[in-house]
Amino acid sequence: MKSTLSQRTINRLTQYYTILRDYSKKEIKNITSSQISQLLDIDETQVRKDIKSINCKGKCKVGYSVFELKSIIEDVLDYNVIKKVYVIGAGNLGVALSKYSKFSEFGLEIDGLFDCDKSKIGKFIDDKEIYDINQLSKKIKETGINIAILTTPNKVAQDICDFLVKSGIKYIWNFAPSILIVPKDVKVWHENLIGSFIQFCAIENIK
Amino acid sequence: MKSTLSQRTINRLTQYYTILRDYSKKEIKNITSSQISQLLDIDETQVRKDIKSINCKGKCKVGYSVFELKSIIEDVLDYNVIKKVYVIGAGNLGVALSKYSKFSEFGLEIDGLFDCDKSKIGKFIDDKEIYDINQLSKKIKETGINIAILTTPNKVAQDICDFLVKSGIKYIWNFAPSILIVPKDVKVWHENLIGSFIQFCAIENIK
Repeated sequence: MKSTLSQRTINRLTQYYTILRDYSKKEIKNITSSQISQLLDIDETQVRKDIKSINCKGKCKVGYSVFELKSIIEDVLDYNVIKKVYVIGAGNLGVALSKYSKFSEFGLEIDGLFDCDKSKIGKFIDDKEIYDINQLSKKIKETGINIAILTTPNKVAQDICDFLVKSGIKYIWNFAPSILIVPKDVKVWHENLIGSFIQFCAIENIK
Repeated sequence: MKSTLSQRTINRLTQYYTILRDYSKKEIKNITSSQISQLLDIDETQVRKDIKSINCKGKCKVGYSVFELKSIIEDVLDYNVIKKVYVIGAGNLGVALSKYSKFSEFGLEIDGLFDCDKSKIGKFIDDKEIYDINQLSKKIKETGINIAILTTPNKVAQDICDFLVKSGIKYIWNFAPSILIVPKDVKVWHENLIGSFIQFCAIENIK
């Protein structure tokens, strides 16, 4: 079902999920589309449409069951299916992403970092070890992990990308600000932080 | 014009721009929709449609002028209008974003970082100083900067957000994994890294 949802809908559902998680922790049982709408500054009709699209039904004057809506979003977006990944580059961005608490709540588990800097290798970021990049191929054979988050500087991104492909990585979530060239059987998702900011400026007419 | 473009179109245009910047540096004069399509794994018809939507015309068998297309995207997406921002939090994420080279190329200029950790205050990230968070209100009065990138941990995000609002910040690009509550005249853009990854998984059917 997930693949039939638009990027915008997926983005909004993850935001609803963040609220539902907070409500669930506070043991609040119900939530209305109006509450979600106000918290996220999203049109209420849109909220209702999104929730209807994943087949969750609310009750008049009561709203949605927090438990039910949370469970449905988890199912629809596969948050319960653990996806293990490696982070390539143990610089500020690699470390920040490894510490990003929200990832694990959404089924994304960082299994380790890789770097070529000998002063970093063997150290831990929380419970995640920094490995020697030369061990990547061996690690992939052991674990079967084939998703990498690339956080290296721009100037080495393509070289490291080539190395990842040779080592057996099939999916690359690329945070380096450059377009990577890969074989057809490897897929790259170019993270586009600046695109996100530019849209914010456009919507709010920031000059 | 920018505000009439969809988020997806803006995202794709920023990706085209990344390629055009590379071509421009290599002094390559023309680019075809087929080349862009292959590099980004985006349907060629979509590429042509996007470029037509910003009124750039190509020539048969030659393609688009790299200089012209690059200039038009710069104009349409206001890359030439400098938008100064402050980064709140000089942890790994704050430092990583401050060093992110792509931002300045797209008109986003980080004017400084703010933190409460006395061991960090007064230090520099490249040429950007880390200021005492208690100086924020004073700095805002001096510079008129009213955009903040929030990178603090989840548990203090709302408190820091309240402080930013009191200090005069009007636009918050929130990287903390929580929904912030703000007055109506303040706008928050919740960055949604995990939503981006989930869509990647959905499109590629990663399990």
